[in-house]
Amino acid sequence: MKKLGTQTIRFERPPSILETASIVGPKEAEGPLAKYFDKCLEDEFWGEKSWEKAESKIIKETVYSVIKKSNIPISAIDYCFAGDLLNQCISSSFGLRDSNFPFIGIFGACSTFVEGMGLGSVFIDGGAANNIICAASSHFCSAEKQFRFPLELGNQRPQSSQWTVTGAGSAIISANGNGPFVTHFTPGKIVDMGIKDSNNMGAAMAPAALDTLLAHFIDTGRNPSYYDAIITGDLGHVGKEILIELAETKGYNIKSNYNDCGVLIFDKKAQDTHAGGSGCACCGTVFSGYLFNMLKTKKYKKILLMATGALMNSTSTQQGESIPGIAHAVSIEL
Amino acid sequence: MKKLGTQTIRFERPPSILETASIVGPKEAEGPLAKYFDKCLEDEFWGEKSWEKAESKIIKETVYSVIKKSNIPISAIDYCFAGDLLNQCISSSFGLRDSNFPFIGIFGACSTFVEGMGLGSVFIDGGAANNIICAASSHFCSAEKQFRFPLELGNQRPQSSQWTVTGAGSAIISANGNGPFVTHFTPGKIVDMGIKDSNNMGAAMAPAALDTLLAHFIDTGRNPSYYDAIITGDLGHVGKEILIELAETKGYNIKSNYNDCGVLIFDKKAQDTHAGGSGCACCGTVFSGYLFNMLKTKKYKKILLMATGALMNSTSTQQGESIPGIAHAVSIEL
Repeated sequence: MKKLGTQTIRFERPPSILETASIVGPKEAEGPLAKYFDKCLEDEFWGEKSWEKAESKIIKETVYSVIKKSNIPISAIDYCFAGDLLNQCISSSFGLRDSNFPFIGIFGACSTFVEGMGLGSVFIDGGAANNIICAASSHFCSAEKQFRFPLELGNQRPQSSQWTVTGAGSAIISANGNGPFVTHFTPGKIVDMGIKDSNNMGAAMAPAALDTLLAHFIDTGRNPSYYDAIITGDLGHVGKEILIELAETKGYNIKSNYNDCGVLIFDKKAQDTHAGGSGCACCGTVFSGYLFNMLKTKKYKKILLMATGALMNSTSTQQGESIPGIAHAVSIEL
Repeated sequence: MKKLGTQTIRFERPPSILETASIVGPKEAEGPLAKYFDKCLEDEFWGEKSWEKAESKIIKETVYSVIKKSNIPISAIDYCFAGDLLNQCISSSFGLRDSNFPFIGIFGACSTFVEGMGLGSVFIDGGAANNIICAASSHFCSAEKQFRFPLELGNQRPQSSQWTVTGAGSAIISANGNGPFVTHFTPGKIVDMGIKDSNNMGAAMAPAALDTLLAHFIDTGRNPSYYDAIITGDLGHVGKEILIELAETKGYNIKSNYNDCGVLIFDKKAQDTHAGGSGCACCGTVFSGYLFNMLKTKKYKKILLMATGALMNSTSTQQGESIPGIAHAVSIEL
């Protein structure tokens, strides 16, 4: 592999995305992408006693599902990169504690899925591995409980707030296979423009998305029209509009081929999800379900997948801090 | 690089550890390794209004310190791998939000420092980067507040409990330099033997340390006597004894050249630290201070550094879960 410009890695033997899997909750099952997911749960508990245990089960079953779908033996998995939104990433570590492959925990908030795909691709192109699993999960109920208010309180949500996706996405990235291929990885910088409203994550993360987008275009010499689709992770309706405007001020018109997983996963009007989906599983499930299908069926041949993350917690908000954002991008091409 | 056996990566152009830096709190400043740290703080706040903000400042200043000591320009840093114990790793992301290099967040609990060294080495040997920073922090007060009880409560601590190290360690890993070199990386598997006592982390993590130790020896064909020192991250006095016994049952005698950063950093009798140090900064500061000095002065020529982590949070404990452990190892050789 080779570093281009300030922050992009170009893979010389681009790793192939062998297979993906996704499991989502009941709300996502009523959304416009339902048919693309492998499994839609009927309730938020899936037979477990807590939302946290349910989230662990979701990521576990998603990881086992992608291995099964790929038809490669579990012993052929070299390493697993996974993470989630729960404190100390317990969804991933409890969910995957019985797996028998080495585990590399990552935290990029809602950018975790793409961070894992990028790191996995570095391992494969570098010769450290043949098959890598990357996975990420989130859960509406465990996230609300942890970051905002008890669900039982029935709190009102402002229109700029987003709905954490319940689910998990997982992909196997491999030295073998016929694509789609991960051709570039642009890890992002932390960008904090001073937004303090934790009910407006889209606005907090959009400047980080812009920063990574610009770096990717400058490093690779590409422009927006190179891609069939530029897809952010969870800027939602508010952040999407901000990113379009910010990109325009920098001379990049992304209006025609840009969308966001948080916009795609819910029907805003019918589902009352306000500014759209969010969470590690937002990008994870929309890629593993919908986007991977679009690539396999050649409806998209080149996409830039850029997952966004808000690097805060409830203590930082209580201490008056603003919300740093980050965005990691991978180019995926046939 | 090349994968050996089931889980070890051997670097073909081993990255050099160019420089390290460490900052510690007042308790660590009274311990036996004080003279090896770059800076010892006089109090736990360092002029900040909260322990969390103090921890962010510590990791930030440690990262800037290692860059300054290395004499390479900040623009030559390609990527930074960092993480900590606070929920959503806010110490790292707030501490490093003003840095101008791409940030890759990682979470391995107290194994984070070695996880970062290993990932950074993969990037460098693969050609994705020339200079990588890895860093990790922890803080006694923010950790107690988050994981156990309010400090103001003056809770009694059982003898098996460990004392979270206040501080941060940071290293620059580079494609250039005269060593010490990172020659191997053995990422660990999650191991959960059912220990539920969050005041006995050493016992919870020792089986994971054994698992990685055995994998490393089997994958590389090495045995304990190959190394001048085998050093775990924070098993402490209890976990250290367990690991020695467990290794013996597997036919490996590590008594003569094995120690633990949590044992080394405090004077158990004089400092009333019970089972010893813990936290991301335990391995981070002991390596960046003491062990790097031992390597540079050629007192050690080959070490196996194996950081251990407990992948739990307070919710998982409250829900009756046991404590999964993990251990990541790197070989460092002159």
